[in-house]
Amino acid sequence: MVDDAARDSRRERRRGRTGEAGSETSRRPDYRSLKNPFLPQPIFSDDQVAAIHDTALRVLEELGIKVLLPQARELFARAGALVDPDTDMVRLGRDMVTAALTSAPKSIQARAGTRARDLTLELGSMTFLAGCGAPNVTDLERGRRPGTLADFEDLMRLVQHFDVLHMLGPCIEPQDVDNRYRHYAVNRAQLTLSDKFPFVFARGTPQVEDGFEMLRLARGLSEDEFRANAHCYTVINTNSPRQLDIPMAQGIIDFARAGQVSVITPFCLAGAMAPITVAGALTLQHAEALAGLTLAQIVRPGAPVVYGSFSSNVDMKSGAPAFGTPEHVKATLGAGQLARFTGLPWRSGGGSAANISDAQAAHETQFALWGSVLAGATMCIHAAGWLEGGLSVSFEKLVTDVEALQTVAELCAPTPGDSDSIGFEAIAEVQPGGHFFSAGHTMARYRTAFYEPLVADWSNFGNWTQSGSKTASERATGVWRRALADFVPPASAVATAGVLDEFIARRTQEGGAAPVS
Amino acid sequence: MVDDAARDSRRERRRGRTGEAGSETSRRPDYRSLKNPFLPQPIFSDDQVAAIHDTALRVLEELGIKVLLPQARELFARAGALVDPDTDMVRLGRDMVTAALTSAPKSIQARAGTRARDLTLELGSMTFLAGCGAPNVTDLERGRRPGTLADFEDLMRLVQHFDVLHMLGPCIEPQDVDNRYRHYAVNRAQLTLSDKFPFVFARGTPQVEDGFEMLRLARGLSEDEFRANAHCYTVINTNSPRQLDIPMAQGIIDFARAGQVSVITPFCLAGAMAPITVAGALTLQHAEALAGLTLAQIVRPGAPVVYGSFSSNVDMKSGAPAFGTPEHVKATLGAGQLARFTGLPWRSGGGSAANISDAQAAHETQFALWGSVLAGATMCIHAAGWLEGGLSVSFEKLVTDVEALQTVAELCAPTPGDSDSIGFEAIAEVQPGGHFFSAGHTMARYRTAFYEPLVADWSNFGNWTQSGSKTASERATGVWRRALADFVPPASAVATAGVLDEFIARRTQEGGAAPVS
Repeated sequence: MVDDAARDSRRERRRGRTGEAGSETSRRPDYRSLKNPFLPQPIFSDDQVAAIHDTALRVLEELGIKVLLPQARELFARAGALVDPDTDMVRLGRDMVTAALTSAPKSIQARAGTRARDLTLELGSMTFLAGCGAPNVTDLERGRRPGTLADFEDLMRLVQHFDVLHMLGPCIEPQDVDNRYRHYAVNRAQLTLSDKFPFVFARGTPQVEDGFEMLRLARGLSEDEFRANAHCYTVINTNSPRQLDIPMAQGIIDFARAGQVSVITPFCLAGAMAPITVAGALTLQHAEALAGLTLAQIVRPGAPVVYGSFSSNVDMKSGAPAFGTPEHVKATLGAGQLARFTGLPWRSGGGSAANISDAQAAHETQFALWGSVLAGATMCIHAAGWLEGGLSVSFEKLVTDVEALQTVAELCAPTPGDSDSIGFEAIAEVQPGGHFFSAGHTMARYRTAFYEPLVADWSNFGNWTQSGSKTASERATGVWRRALADFVPPASAVATAGVLDEFIARRTQEGGAAPVS
Repeated sequence: MVDDAARDSRRERRRGRTGEAGSETSRRPDYRSLKNPFLPQPIFSDDQVAAIHDTALRVLEELGIKVLLPQARELFARAGALVDPDTDMVRLGRDMVTAALTSAPKSIQARAGTRARDLTLELGSMTFLAGCGAPNVTDLERGRRPGTLADFEDLMRLVQHFDVLHMLGPCIEPQDVDNRYRHYAVNRAQLTLSDKFPFVFARGTPQVEDGFEMLRLARGLSEDEFRANAHCYTVINTNSPRQLDIPMAQGIIDFARAGQVSVITPFCLAGAMAPITVAGALTLQHAEALAGLTLAQIVRPGAPVVYGSFSSNVDMKSGAPAFGTPEHVKATLGAGQLARFTGLPWRSGGGSAANISDAQAAHETQFALWGSVLAGATMCIHAAGWLEGGLSVSFEKLVTDVEALQTVAELCAPTPGDSDSIGFEAIAEVQPGGHFFSAGHTMARYRTAFYEPLVADWSNFGNWTQSGSKTASERATGVWRRALADFVPPASAVATAGVLDEFIARRTQEGGAAPVS
């Protein structure tokens, strides 16, 4: 493995991808700020989109949503919602929802650790995130196992390493850290290893406040400066159908108050927690997302919220969730229509239900990815490494999926169609039966013309066999091992360690903060 | 393996997919006639497309194309082209090309063995073909080996089995049959095992005439009846850059005379046999395709031709062809724009350069597939099973790729967005914290709501491990083995064997027909 890594490292240097001296003529793709070049693909007529929106408003008006947090019910009631004290059901008038859609920002400036990593979240922009929320981690060398802090840190290093992964996220749950202190470790890893836009868990106000304080310390911001911009995000999952639990409602409130980003995502599995039709699942998703973002706007008009969609289907024989299915793609395309109807930035979900990084995993992941791309999703979460419908994150799959994301990123770049690119003279230069390898047109461009693969191997069968007949996943092991071995965290991130460790030491002495449920 | 197949077969029967009595309530998707539901995605402006077309006309007018077949040069000359007798270069005026684009049919009715398998080839329709032209065949049980007639026959059975594969094709080269008799075996296998639209090699007039005669015998047609409709197709590859060899030129002439379909496909690998830019490779492709289809229209105005595109790139370090790359996807999207400019049905090419059916193979194949889908290709060749850039066809990859094709086919079906699908009542029926499994809305639809996977396994990690931790490729082995074991050729196809065998026996006695080169 060491030999492989060394050889691959030499090859990478030859390719000039490591940014060393003398490589100015090599390819330096910029994947940091992607604009989606594809026309959004609709599955519903405009009338049908309006009908889904209207039905979602009826769901909120006539049926309501159960809100478990008293403070949230009070906020809703004060804003004009009808709250049933016996059932905790909250019914929202469409005027409240319309006002919320008006005050929610259509564009969010996400401030990262350095300005070069800042992101604009709005319709038309496209960001990718690695798989998140998995209890387990897996790789070909160590097998599948419960996630640890060491794994989480390695995943943060890999997310930092690949420019096409635009934000950090809670890839795996570090189960070796007590849950009263886990959020310190998770936040510390993000802030000291990376300068990308970080995630903070919404597991109760004490943990959220700890997270905000760590961000203020790391970024050197006052409370007011912190509130003035979006410095982190959280994901709020409603409990479909029609329920908002205590930590999630509290998270919406806490993040809105602090001007931080809530990604409000119903997880609507058609046939299980949502109606079996794509239109029905999206109607429930839309109603729940609207309820959540309305709460955020009640707390603070203009609070940054991302419309969330993660609707797929289940296997009706076993109840098992499925991803990358035709229904998942369709639900994502429909969600894009609903998001555009609101005008808000929005998130989709990628992923696969496969148990190993095989052809099924790749196909499902790419179908989900294309659903997101063709739906115009602003944030595509779980786009790399996610297996088992989110029960594990795979190191090698993260690498092979990054290759797919880089391919999409390459498609964002314009294709020159000027006279020089059309190249009549180049065609004239090469006679029938000849080749273009040494044509002037080729020589002027060959270093930078084509995408250079991360893990794909295009050698012929003989050479591939001589190199050990490795699958893409086996080769991916060399890629992530090398990325970790060569990893140097950004100096600005490293510099935050001292102040963060001081804070963590104090809070640990104080007993930390248990998650609220 | 036998046990697995039996278990899987039982599961398939339970799922009701085998069409047995009592399964009327199960899902019966119809993949036979697909209309592409996606908006075509452009990479060039309309002006740039016009400039590429104009430059291609300049290439043909000013530079010309080398035509190795004297008869073809004569035909071109008689139609007004300038032929240089010293260099065999043919220069075509744009008037000739414009006339050809006018007379070429915009819609081709492809007559298969039964009307239920007929296809309409025109912009907006979408057909998929398995990988074609490979010298080798591979599967997990027997490994990679030179193709044999037995393999070819098995592949024809599998192509016939999966409705989402719309035409037959020369998947692999049966190298165990002498090349003077090989075309008899290939044609016989297609006509006796399948009722789908068949392929005939263009390897010289004697072989082509044999193929046409076998088709007339199998279909019970007179020569005039045969000529009146398109009963088969061939693929014409130009020798890029700017050369048309003897068998290919002869093929265009023979197929046009007989009213059969020529798919005229330059194989333009940017940086090698074509300019290194996507626009340049497409300009050369366009010029060569126009030259070929002009020859067909000179021979017989109205002869059915399919505009062919198979432009990708090479690795500039090794010269190795690559597929499913960003450049391949872009070239396909641009080719779609050029094809729509001509108004003709057109073919694209899928595939992967991977050496084994792994994550790379799946990702590359699906990227190439999406290129074809979003470019609006009428025929997508090499869409299933193609490995090593066409040097082998894999049985298990054919199955995993068919799952991807079926997913795309499912996306062609409209998504209901009516009030009943939106399902306000269903949402009202299920209380917060409940589930939709037993809702009336679900019960009325659960048998047919969702795509049922062919090879994907959505079981959880524990069950998957207990079932032997099989990869998708390993499970695919059971799928293709079962499909072959259960295969029953269409009665109409079986019925052709007698008359074909009589013909083959006579022609074999006469010495067969060697390929022309």
